[in-house]
Order: sequence, then C-alpha cells, then structure tokens
Amino acid sequence: MTDQPKWVTADNAALLTDQYELTMLQAYWREEMDREAVFSLYVRRLPEGRNYLLACGLGDVLDYIETMRFNQKSIDYLAERDEFSDEFLDWLKDFRFSGDVYAVREGTPVFSEEPIIEVAGPIAEAQLLETFVMNQIHFQTVLASKAARVVSAAGDRAVVDFGLRRMHGADAGIKAARAFHIAGVAATSNVLAGQLYGVPVTGTMAHSYIQAHDRELDAFRAFAHLYGDTILLVDTYDTLEGVRKVVELAEEMGDEFRVRGIRLDSGDLAQLAVDSRKILDDAGLENVDIFASGGLNEHNIAEMIEEGAPISGFGVGTGMGVADDAPALDIAYKLTAYAETGRLKLSSGKKILPGRKQIFRIEENGGAVRDVLGRADEDGPGRPLLRKVMSGGKRVADEDHSLDEARERAREEIDKLPERIRSIAAAEPPYPVQISDALKAYQREITEAVKDAQSAEASSAERGSSR
Amino acid sequence: MTDQPKWVTADNAALLTDQYELTMLQAYWREEMDREAVFSLYVRRLPEGRNYLLACGLGDVLDYIETMRFNQKSIDYLAERDEFSDEFLDWLKDFRFSGDVYAVREGTPVFSEEPIIEVAGPIAEAQLLETFVMNQIHFQTVLASKAARVVSAAGDRAVVDFGLRRMHGADAGIKAARAFHIAGVAATSNVLAGQLYGVPVTGTMAHSYIQAHDRELDAFRAFAHLYGDTILLVDTYDTLEGVRKVVELAEEMGDEFRVRGIRLDSGDLAQLAVDSRKILDDAGLENVDIFASGGLNEHNIAEMIEEGAPISGFGVGTGMGVADDAPALDIAYKLTAYAETGRLKLSSGKKILPGRKQIFRIEENGGAVRDVLGRADEDGPGRPLLRKVMSGGKRVADEDHSLDEARERAREEIDKLPERIRSIAAAEPPYPVQISDALKAYQREITEAVKDAQSAEASSAERGSSR
Repeated sequence: MTDQPKWVTADNAALLTDQYELTMLQAYWREEMDREAVFSLYVRRLPEGRNYLLACGLGDVLDYIETMRFNQKSIDYLAERDEFSDEFLDWLKDFRFSGDVYAVREGTPVFSEEPIIEVAGPIAEAQLLETFVMNQIHFQTVLASKAARVVSAAGDRAVVDFGLRRMHGADAGIKAARAFHIAGVAATSNVLAGQLYGVPVTGTMAHSYIQAHDRELDAFRAFAHLYGDTILLVDTYDTLEGVRKVVELAEEMGDEFRVRGIRLDSGDLAQLAVDSRKILDDAGLENVDIFASGGLNEHNIAEMIEEGAPISGFGVGTGMGVADDAPALDIAYKLTAYAETGRLKLSSGKKILPGRKQIFRIEENGGAVRDVLGRADEDGPGRPLLRKVMSGGKRVADEDHSLDEARERAREEIDKLPERIRSIAAAEPPYPVQISDALKAYQREITEAVKDAQSAEASSAERGSSR
Repeated sequence: MTDQPKWVTADNAALLTDQYELTMLQAYWREEMDREAVFSLYVRRLPEGRNYLLACGLGDVLDYIETMRFNQKSIDYLAERDEFSDEFLDWLKDFRFSGDVYAVREGTPVFSEEPIIEVAGPIAEAQLLETFVMNQIHFQTVLASKAARVVSAAGDRAVVDFGLRRMHGADAGIKAARAFHIAGVAATSNVLAGQLYGVPVTGTMAHSYIQAHDRELDAFRAFAHLYGDTILLVDTYDTLEGVRKVVELAEEMGDEFRVRGIRLDSGDLAQLAVDSRKILDDAGLENVDIFASGGLNEHNIAEMIEEGAPISGFGVGTGMGVADDAPALDIAYKLTAYAETGRLKLSSGKKILPGRKQIFRIEENGGAVRDVLGRADEDGPGRPLLRKVMSGGKRVADEDHSLDEARERAREEIDKLPERIRSIAAAEPPYPVQISDALKAYQREITEAVKDAQSAEASSAERGSSR
C-alpha cells in the first residue's frame, strides 16, 4: 500500500493548533464575547548564555494569518468529533482574522519581556492564532539567535548551514535556513530553501563519494573535472595524505585546476588546518582555501580563530541546527487586555504586563544603550520598535519581509549593541530593559483591580456557601 | 502583497536535500557508477542520560521513498543553477528509487552502532535519500526516545503532549505527536495530528479564557455547561481559591456537574495537588481528577510521584517537545559497501562497520539481555531485528506502519528491556551490544584492504612526483 507522505499545507494548516484554541473559540462564540483582546508574545527569561534574541518568523506568520481558512475537509474532521456544534462549524467556515498585528521587524534584537508580536482583535480570532504564531516565532527566533552567535564567533570567515539532516523536520529545515541567513549565515546546503526563499545554496562532497571510488585521487579528479571551482573533502582516510592528493591533482591538471578549497571534517581541525595550509602553500596552491566542519559551534569556532587556524569558512550542522544548548525559549502568548481593560494573571512566577506596549530603544553615539518598555500610547524616549504590520486583517502596504532587508537590518541592529552583548560570553551586566513609569503605574492599577475583583468574588462565594 | 505561506509538500519535497547529494548524483551518473551501494543509518553514541533509543520515523520515510519525484518546477529550478547539465536533468525527471530497504520496526529500542535503516540500491539512488531519511528518522527518534522516558517516569498516570507551540516547526508538530503516541503518550493537544495520524486529541482551557471573564467562576460555569466532562484551569489568580470555585460550581450545578478534572499549571505542583485534593474530597468531588502541567519532564514527574502527589495526568510541553536535554543525536548515514565490497573510513573517531548487517536480540526468560551486531547473512543468535521493508522500490506487502501496532510493539519491546535500561537514571552497566566474530573479522579484512590501497596510492604518487 502506497501512502502519500503527510505534510502540513495550506489545506490543513488551520488545524495545526491546540484543541483548546478551538473549544475556547466556540465558547467565546457561544457567550457572544467579541470585544477586542490584546495578546502579547514575548520571552519571559533569556536562556542561560544568551545576551539577546534575534526576532524571526514574522514573514511566515503574516502570510499564514492572511491566508488561513478552515476548508470543508477540516470542518468535516471537526464535525466528526463531539465538541463542536453545526452552527459553530458554519461560522468557522467563514473565519477570517480581522484584527491588527504589531511586531518588531525580523532581524531585530530583543530582550526578555519585550513583545515580539502583539495581536489585537476580536478575542476569538486573536486567541485562535496563538498556537501557530508561537510555533513559528519561537523556533525561528531560537535558531536565528543561535546562528547570530555562531556568525559573531566566526568574525569575517563565512558560516554555512549544514544542519538540514539533524533539524526537527521538514518545515524547520527550510525556515531555519532562512532564519540563519537573516542572522548572517552566508549560505545553506538546503536546496529547497534556495528555491523557496532565495537563500544562497552551496555544497561540497560526502565521504561516501570518496569511499565508492577505489582510489581517493580518482574521486577528486572526477569531481574537479565536473565542477571546476569545487571543494574536496580530504579526511576520509588520512587528512594530510588527502591534501597531498589534491596537490597531485593540481600538478596533473595544470591550468585546468580551479578547485577552490578543501574540507576538513574530523580530528584536530585547527592543527590539521595549519599542516594542510603548509602543504598547499608549499605547492603554490595559496588560492585553495580551507573549510572546516564536524561538531562546530560558536565556542570551538572562536577557539580556532583565537589559535590563528587558517580556516576560511565553517560548515555548521547540528549545534546550530537544533540550537542544542538552548533549543527552546520560555515564550508566552498572553492576554494583556480585553474590552479595553488591562488583564493579567497572579500565578506565581508568570507575571504579565497589561495592555498594548511599545519598546523604545535608546541610542547614544549610534549605539544602543538601553531599552524602555512602555505603554503603546506613551511618548517614550528613543526609537519605537513595535510597528503596525497588519491592519484589519491585511498586511500594511509598506510591510514586507524581504530576506535581504531583514539580513541587512539584523547586521545593523546587532552592530549597534554594546560589545559585551554581541559577545558569545554571558554579558555582565545584561542589556538594561526598564519598565516605564506609566507601564508600572498601569500594572499596579490593574493588579489592584484584579485582586479586588478576586476578593469580592471570594466573599460573595463565602456568603453563597453560608446559605 | 499577500504571499502564500511556504510549505514542504509532495510537489517540492525532492528538493529538500543537501546540494551535495545532487552534485554527487550527477557525478555518479556521469562516471556511470551504478553498482549497488549499501548505506547504513545508525547513531554513533547515545546521548548522555539515554539508555536506549526508540526507533521512529520509518513510516514517513517509506511513504516518501515510494512517492518522491522531481517535478518540472523542481527541474526548472535546478536548471537555473550552473551545476547541472540538461541531459542529467532529463534523467532526473524519471528518477525512482529501485532498491531495497531494511529497517527495524518503529517502536523498537535500539542502541549505539545498531542500524535503524539500511538502504541498498544503485549508488546514486541510495545516496540521494540520505538527507531526507536522516532528517525524519533523526528527529522522530530523538522525540520518541525522550517521550519514552517521560512515560516511564509517569508510570500508570497519563502523559499528554502539549508541545506544539514550542516544537521546531509545523512538520515536527504533527510527527512528534505521532512519535510520542508510539512511545506511550496517551494523547496530544495537536488537532492536525489527530486528523492526519489518528492520534487521540484532547485539551483543556487557557488562562486567557479565565482572564477575559470578569469573574473566574463565570468562565468555569460557561465552559462546564458547554463541554460537560471538561478540565478547568485553576491557577490564574490563586490556585486553591480556584479549586474552591470549582466546588462552588459543583454545588450550583448539582447533578449536571460532570467536570472531570482540574489543571494546575504553576507553583509547587505536588503540594498544590495535595491541598487541592483535600478541598475536592471534602466537597465529595472524589471523581474530579488533578492534572498538572508547566515545565514538566521525566525528572520532576518522577519526583512528584515519589512524593505521592495525587496527580492523575501530566501535560508535558517544551521539555519533551524539543527533547531539551538531548535535542540531537550523533546520527550517520554511511556507505558500508559498494560493488559487493565492504567500505569504511579511517577518519578519527568515526568508525564504520562494513557491509550489510543484522541486529540479533538475545532474550532470556522473556527479557532482552544483550544484542549481537553481526553480518546480514550470518546465522546469529537471538531474534533478528532488521527486516526487509522495501524491495525493488516497493514496500513489502505485509509491511505497514499502523500507529496502534507500533505503539503496542514499543510497549512490549520496552517492557522486555532490563529494568536499569528502562529507568530514567543512567544505566550502569549500559545494555550490552557485542560485535559478532564474523563482523569483526570482516571489519579487519576491509580495514586492511583499504589501508593497502591507501599505501599503494601513496607510493604510486611518490613515484609519480619523483618523475
């Protein structure tokens, strides 16, 4: 029996949600609760070892919000379940998001508690977006933030994404390649990311190609004749012997030899790079660059550069591909207002700042020095980072998500951060984010109001149960 | 401008590959290298803290191999690039995998160096599958293995997957829910995983729903009337006050009250469960169960159970959703034979066992005691785990990947493991995997042959350069 593989597509993506979004949606609909809600998506705390996060994923989220629909097949599936009435499912068929979205641009560094996105709209609509918006912004921000560290460690050497095989699934594969490129990664091995997003695509060769040939030199020769300015993988049997075979090939090919590099993928990469460089240089092959791969991350890349290893580029796979030291963020999508009233929780350790907000980034001499997190309508200091990107369910006209623009913006914005924040070492002190006086006062006001309502409810319950 | 969101689908999935697979493919095609290759997919070392891995992802991989095609749009994209000749692209249009696949069944515990899949076929075809097969088997095995630990810690209490919002992308979301269910997770919040794979779907309510109501009790009442046997989230303001409101609602609703549980999502979950249980029991609500969520993993679940917390089920999100303590495996897809000759590498730390292999699991008194990793054709001891699942590019007739069967198999196979291996503590000693004498001898033979070929190549090079 041949089954088609299962994919998330435009046809079924509306069901890529937590069941409770749909049951709450029906409840809001039944209770006729349709006043405007504000949901704020932010990270409660930065993971250990992260000095900032690089916001990413907005482009995909806006595309999704504009186009997501419950088609008949999805409605039929929900109808098979017990929870949903026919009237509600009829209403769901016409579901469109009609609200507004505020967001920081992709490639903007953000800090804990700062909203990456705020969604304002009829509560049912804004609630329903929760799962998808979190899923996409979360993992793309996780991966962009990790990649920015790797790029920072590599300095002026190129970083290439080799991670597809160990990323978590197909969707992660294409979107990580895009997020990495925004964060400064030069290219990806992922061909589909090239087709869909225009990320530059590159590649070398695998050990299997060498192994399948009876002689290593035969494999090098065939590849070099076919691809010209290619990169040859030299560590299948003995790295330095492999490099000598590249020299041999160069002598053999003469002027036709255009191989642009060798790749080292095992052993002591820094030392092998030094030794390989010498062999290449002695043979007059100064133009053949050395690339390294295999278990790389920001720390061992920084070390190799510190040691002066003559490596021109790094192929980074697993460590960056799953952000292995911080694969998840403490991210939340929280109701901060409903029916023109700020809302919050009192749960321990899970503070909510009420209402719509704005991030003000304060710069001195061209460098960012601190942020102030304030209320959306206050005239705060510095540059406001949250912009209206969707109005009445439609993308704001000048709002795009060009990959090149986002990449350029990320570079500029990261360059503006203080050096200790850009560093891969934990920054002390961390980047300062202050809560504005107006937001503090509003939080106190709403906290008091919620506590009062709780007390009133409790005493009325007491009266009730003493009946 | 409205863009369609980007998805990986049947139309473009053939391009979800590393560029080097395609350049090597063209090289094999040009060199007319079309003899049979064997590639073996295995994990080199288990991550710290894992006693076994639960193999997962085979179903998706077989569906993909049977159906993947380069359509015209994909061919056009490749034609725009410099690397590929028109003749090669014509050939690629008709690309079909025509080889054989051997694999352990989904839900089988495996150990380091044991092949999860072996692909045998013309080298170009078997090579091309590398990236996709690794991507899917890797992350699904990562997540199933993590979930098996959480399920083991939870014992007879249910574990529910709440992880979609923090998983890495849409594809991970649906396939993780399936992998988790195979590993023993009872249900998922992910509606699409229900539709596509038949995983049981469940859900409760979010804090936002409570916050949007002026009184917590109003929210509880509306939900309980609409959904009957639902679960109410009690920790938005004050957990025990929340529980008292559930009691109040029960008094108010009388016989109509069918709420089946409360959910605790913050604070000291074990203590709050004890206190909540007392409030519920004192009110005669012994049938209302307590569910816990919020930052759960196998360790804190085991602790809560050890403390005797009266919790019936656990909603587990992030920790399981990204396997945060081991989000990646040192997985490899390595050429082990070509043209009927075993192949390996000599790279440091990256040993390859040559040829096709078989895993023999040896059981005593119904329990697994050790594995022997041998050659495919040897008559090894114990139960062979690798089965031919695809022959000549077609799935073997009796080979399916029913979710229920895989789940049942996983339960049985995990139950057979020694207790120290099933435990969430690091097992000492680890599960024994021995290499058979025949495989050891073959590895020696091939290693010698490869070294001899290397020496011969080196001395011929020396002669060459002394000319």
